[in-house]
Amino acid sequence: MSLLVVGSIAIDSIESPHGSVPEVLGGSATHFSLAASLYAPVRLVGVVGEDFPGGYVDVLKQHDVDLAGLQVAPGRSFRWTGRYEGAMAQAETLATELNVFGSFDPKVPESFRDSRFVFLANGVPGVQAKVLDQIDPGQSFTVLDTMNLWIETTRHDLVDVLGRVNGLVINDEEIRQLTGQPNLVRAGRVVLTMGPEVVIVKKGEHGALLFKGDEVFAAPAYPIDRVIDPTGAGDSFAGGFMGAIASCERRDPTLDDLRRAVVVGIVTSSFNVEDFGPARLHSIRPEEVEERYRRYADMLRVEGAPTLRQGASAT
Amino acid sequence: MSLLVVGSIAIDSIESPHGSVPEVLGGSATHFSLAASLYAPVRLVGVVGEDFPGGYVDVLKQHDVDLAGLQVAPGRSFRWTGRYEGAMAQAETLATELNVFGSFDPKVPESFRDSRFVFLANGVPGVQAKVLDQIDPGQSFTVLDTMNLWIETTRHDLVDVLGRVNGLVINDEEIRQLTGQPNLVRAGRVVLTMGPEVVIVKKGEHGALLFKGDEVFAAPAYPIDRVIDPTGAGDSFAGGFMGAIASCERRDPTLDDLRRAVVVGIVTSSFNVEDFGPARLHSIRPEEVEERYRRYADMLRVEGAPTLRQGASAT
Repeated sequence: MSLLVVGSIAIDSIESPHGSVPEVLGGSATHFSLAASLYAPVRLVGVVGEDFPGGYVDVLKQHDVDLAGLQVAPGRSFRWTGRYEGAMAQAETLATELNVFGSFDPKVPESFRDSRFVFLANGVPGVQAKVLDQIDPGQSFTVLDTMNLWIETTRHDLVDVLGRVNGLVINDEEIRQLTGQPNLVRAGRVVLTMGPEVVIVKKGEHGALLFKGDEVFAAPAYPIDRVIDPTGAGDSFAGGFMGAIASCERRDPTLDDLRRAVVVGIVTSSFNVEDFGPARLHSIRPEEVEERYRRYADMLRVEGAPTLRQGASAT
Repeated sequence: MSLLVVGSIAIDSIESPHGSVPEVLGGSATHFSLAASLYAPVRLVGVVGEDFPGGYVDVLKQHDVDLAGLQVAPGRSFRWTGRYEGAMAQAETLATELNVFGSFDPKVPESFRDSRFVFLANGVPGVQAKVLDQIDPGQSFTVLDTMNLWIETTRHDLVDVLGRVNGLVINDEEIRQLTGQPNLVRAGRVVLTMGPEVVIVKKGEHGALLFKGDEVFAAPAYPIDRVIDPTGAGDSFAGGFMGAIASCERRDPTLDDLRRAVVVGIVTSSFNVEDFGPARLHSIRPEEVEERYRRYADMLRVEGAPTLRQGASAT
């Protein structure tokens, strides 16, 4: 069913130990859309500048992303320059030029307002709230992403918008910062008291945690021996997750739907990191996703149970 | 079947955000033995000083640990004082007094030499080698633990002893340091070329990785919302792992044996961290282990597969 994403579309320049690429297609909504479109049709709301290459728009079109909500604004497109070193767990941002994204005023087209699944990619909480004003939250399953900058600078707005969504996708350091809880299980539970009924903690090479009610689901990352560029890993995880949820066609996903969606997110993002920018997501074949999903599910399968020694207890 | 552990027996003083305890039972061989004894009878080789409390010896006896290899040497017992803060991922060592452990010369009693499963807990690689000299490695499944100190100061000896064992248990930072490989999957594969046919990477709150041949198995940690004291978490993981392997009674564990043993290690160590020192391991009831194992296995179970969109591929 219809999945709406609102977020950034960027031009990224990236350095990693495996090389560097100038001016590739980037942005949270881009990585999300290419990942999610494997599982469900995607509608995108975003903004680019007049300099945005037509070829990059074509990439989104080739994945059947509905661009009725794509604004072309006077000025230059959002640009990000970053570098990864060592274990590449975190990007060092070398330059951020917000350009047209700095004054992004999302307009959800009339044709998108019936979207049953909505993802508010990382952005200013006040702008995320404007999207919620344009849809019917009672009719949609809405998930939010955020980052350390908004937790630090616009906490009040962030807490407001958190109270209006069904789910939060956030990384481990950010949820510790948001809740002041170093223990991730406790941190997840704290967020469940702030509005969302589903919380997903992204842990990069260590996988993800899912919280819903009293349930906690932990899933390891898919083991990847060649990480070329982690840019967009979190957004492609969210894309796989929301795409899988949207493909279930239930507005209230069950715990099984959510677990499976976390695994789909993990498997999908494992492709994202295998090449620079969204190149691997662009070239991916459905059979490759299916095969990796099978391998992952096999990996998790543990047969049998431990045999405890007779009289193992001391007491 | 018979499981031999050689390692430290200590008196630990520990501070964590949840309180502090002076002079509790500690040491790698202690945490290992209490964990492993849930699954298999344990034989211990270690040394304590004349000041070692008889009550602490009794704790080991209550778990049926065979103490024929316990030396009591003139002088004071090994003492360690440490502190945990925040997410408690790493201990800050406040004081280490090696005392009698500083001149530990392990003697494997004649009655222990037929041990089919051997764990060399963290210690000087040269001392670990002395144990190997006293057993028949061709008749046993031998696994080694180590730490950053030995990688830095006695790398040559460590590489030597690595060439003589079947398995290595090591944490994520240590394997990166040992191999120079920031990617953990690559790092695991590098160690497989150094001798061991099995490599297990402990990742604390993020679970563990297992490498054997071309296979990689990733398992998340059991989600724990109340970590009181992580001291001995790695040793109790190793104890659960080796105990489960020993209970299979196959000297050449299969991949399924190894996977299950990793999960047993994860579940067992999840109890260890719930109280100071080895208190929780001492009080644990077999039913509690079985129940947590079931919950963990249920958590990993993911039903179904993703539905890919028709025409999901761009190419």
